[in-house]
Amino acid sequence: MRLNRKDLLGIEDLSGEEIGLILETAESFREVSEREIKKVPTLRGKTVINLFYEPSTRTRTSFEIAAKRMSADAVNISVSTSSVVKGETLKDTARNLEAMRPDCIVVRHASAGVPMMLAGYVGCPVVNAGDGAHEHPSQALLDMLTVKEKKGTIEGLKIAIIGDIAHSRVARSNIYGFTKMGASVTVAGPPTMLPIGIESLGCNATTDVDAAIRDADVIMMLRIQTERQKESFFPTVREYSSLYGLNSARLKKAKPDVIILHPGPINRGVEISSEVADGPFSLILDQVTNGVAVRMAIFYMLLGAAREE
Amino acid sequence: MRLNRKDLLGIEDLSGEEIGLILETAESFREVSEREIKKVPTLRGKTVINLFYEPSTRTRTSFEIAAKRMSADAVNISVSTSSVVKGETLKDTARNLEAMRPDCIVVRHASAGVPMMLAGYVGCPVVNAGDGAHEHPSQALLDMLTVKEKKGTIEGLKIAIIGDIAHSRVARSNIYGFTKMGASVTVAGPPTMLPIGIESLGCNATTDVDAAIRDADVIMMLRIQTERQKESFFPTVREYSSLYGLNSARLKKAKPDVIILHPGPINRGVEISSEVADGPFSLILDQVTNGVAVRMAIFYMLLGAAREE
Amino acid sequence: MRLNRKDLLGIEDLSGEEIGLILETAESFREVSEREIKKVPTLRGKTVINLFYEPSTRTRTSFEIAAKRMSADAVNISVSTSSVVKGETLKDTARNLEAMRPDCIVVRHASAGVPMMLAGYVGCPVVNAGDGAHEHPSQALLDMLTVKEKKGTIEGLKIAIIGDIAHSRVARSNIYGFTKMGASVTVAGPPTMLPIGIESLGCNATTDVDAAIRDADVIMMLRIQTERQKESFFPTVREYSSLYGLNSARLKKAKPDVIILHPGPINRGVEISSEVADGPFSLILDQVTNGVAVRMAIFYMLLGAAREE
Repeated sequence: MRLNRKDLLGIEDLSGEEIGLILETAESFREVSEREIKKVPTLRGKTVINLFYEPSTRTRTSFEIAAKRMSADAVNISVSTSSVVKGETLKDTARNLEAMRPDCIVVRHASAGVPMMLAGYVGCPVVNAGDGAHEHPSQALLDMLTVKEKKGTIEGLKIAIIGDIAHSRVARSNIYGFTKMGASVTVAGPPTMLPIGIESLGCNATTDVDAAIRDADVIMMLRIQTERQKESFFPTVREYSSLYGLNSARLKKAKPDVIILHPGPINRGVEISSEVADGPFSLILDQVTNGVAVRMAIFYMLLGAAREE
Repeated sequence: MRLNRKDLLGIEDLSGEEIGLILETAESFREVSEREIKKVPTLRGKTVINLFYEPSTRTRTSFEIAAKRMSADAVNISVSTSSVVKGETLKDTARNLEAMRPDCIVVRHASAGVPMMLAGYVGCPVVNAGDGAHEHPSQALLDMLTVKEKKGTIEGLKIAIIGDIAHSRVARSNIYGFTKMGASVTVAGPPTMLPIGIESLGCNATTDVDAAIRDADVIMMLRIQTERQKESFFPTVREYSSLYGLNSARLKKAKPDVIILHPGPINRGVEISSEVADGPFSLILDQVTNGVAVRMAIFYMLLGAAREE
Repeated sequence: MRLNRKDLLGIEDLSGEEIGLILETAESFREVSEREIKKVPTLRGKTVINLFYEPSTRTRTSFEIAAKRMSADAVNISVSTSSVVKGETLKDTARNLEAMRPDCIVVRHASAGVPMMLAGYVGCPVVNAGDGAHEHPSQALLDMLTVKEKKGTIEGLKIAIIGDIAHSRVARSNIYGFTKMGASVTVAGPPTMLPIGIESLGCNATTDVDAAIRDADVIMMLRIQTERQKESFFPTVREYSSLYGLNSARLKKAKPDVIILHPGPINRGVEISSEVADGPFSLILDQVTNGVAVRMAIFYMLLGAAREE
């Protein structure tokens, strides 16, 4: 099954049906990484460029492994070590890369909108691997895949997303995704980190974390960037942890079958305690495993499936 | 067809016949990158090392993609992040890499002559990917391929190369290449950037850009490194652009079937205006596409063709 | 033949029999790198992650080439350019990488013990590519392979290891390895660089380099990190070279069939003179070639051989 679109730029513009198809496809690729020989020939002879303007271990590695397990050639471009330093415009970088005939460009950038701009410049598929505080669609898809794997369905679930909502592309992509799939989403965090009008995305908002987790089937903790403390979004890390972090005491207020997600990397003892992160409700590592499967599915549906139609 | 030489160090020491053979071979590889499955098995089991002492997106990526589309294994070494930092001599780096039995080393370095030194140290083929202000042979070959593709032949054409001739390895390689192929080359630029005695390479030289482009079949604009302004090679970027840059007004003085090349990355509004760079006479993106084909041909002719003889 | 262990963390915990098996396996892989097509399909569909917290050209490149010649997919993570910067713990990095289902993690770190910690966190094989001043097992294995190749056997040989013993993971791994294989090892160097109690590892120690090399069948010179001079481990580079370096004059005191090793990168004129490094007794480049074969053997025995049992 092929997506009827050129790019994967965000969850906002996907339909629930499209999300469902990606998740089903990802489920079918999950077993490839559990095989003795973790490779399918599907994308042999395809070139995937990972164009990363922000450093990232896990996301770049996940996309690279996904590409290689599909037998594609992966080419990494890290901008700090590249000639983009020379001041070339995004448009020129895009069109020059396109002229080398890649089959897909995966892009991460600190500025919202860059993947969309890039997609407008090139004919090949573009995958947004995170753009500023805008979207991180493959993260939301792997989150939904993880929830679906555990809960059987997403529809009707209550999702609590907790932390720095204002600066989080993960939160935005997940709000779009879970609401489209029929879940109800509540975001919670300090008032300085809850953007006014966030409810217009289709979620509830509260500064009361305990209230948010009480009925939640899924708790998604967001990473606190401790450098934000200097910007006065919160007084101290200790206070943040006490008021908004997830620890064993607070977790007791949640449902007995709650599951806990975190996009990583986690700050142990800040937004999540070690007992919770490593405890029986945590699916943090399942998320990472599902990330490879979701990215294999994305590559397959954007650039591999045509031959079978 | 195999080149009867171990290395590709520069255009200066190639014969016109050799250049012609490389261009013909590159033409035959061009279609590989247009296929559904962009891969030929020719160099399976070969190891290509990209040893870059200067950062570069496009050249390293182009060589890497070329190697992978030939089914070779590509290994990137970027010196800023490597143990060459530890102060090892070039000779030791060379011989250590050779001891790992690569089939080809592609090298870029800020100092002229490094690829030749490297080639003397190792038994495997060495490809110069740009050395100081000396040569950039794969760039000149892709430029010639682009001209030949559009004009049918290089012989008898008039080529104008405009900009910072003194510091340009691209200019030098192209002067050698186009004159060997029977074209006549005129270089033009500010007097501070026109080296005395450049005519000894077989070209004409002038500070009158309008005169240079008037009869030209091909205009090649060179990148201005704006940091040169501090070195007083030119007074202001604006003045440079006005006197030596290519814009629509100046282009009206050129032939109606002129074609425009630029090795990239371009400085929009400095040496070339956006209308010209993106306009109908520009072949800048064809150059990039041809770059992959030329590098596939170089790999093939230096290390792959033996088995067929 | 498969090693009956999950990881390769050091030579200290290997038996002589295990070392012997690795060396025999490496001998059988040596010819792969001399073939026209340098590739065997043995590890197709396996993923090897090179996780380097310290920069390294030769070791990372050697592991990468070894993996690719076994047809494995190699994924490089260099920590300075990665999100490990974000302050994630080693445990979380380890478990996140494991969740992507690699088949092996190769790790280099400035701190002793990191590979062992990593191995405790993940289920897949971990290979120590050098940890602080602790061990560098693949280096010692390639050193032993080089000696065995030249001398036929290791048993009964006299090995002199000369230089900064205190800070050298190479020295430690080689002391373990050569003594387990029946050689006798003498370490020599300035008193500031000879750790008290080093004899407890099973070797002799002396500050008299001439005495150490007099009876040696193998002289292994260690790299001097010239920045140690500032730490007052030795007065001047010139004095170090004169008292502890290996030059032609000193070499005359050695046996006529002595062989000389150095883990590289060498400091010409410091711990070893150019005539000696490039002379007929030096096997420095054989070491590098054998390094690829040893690493292919390590990958094979840790993760590839299961299918044949």
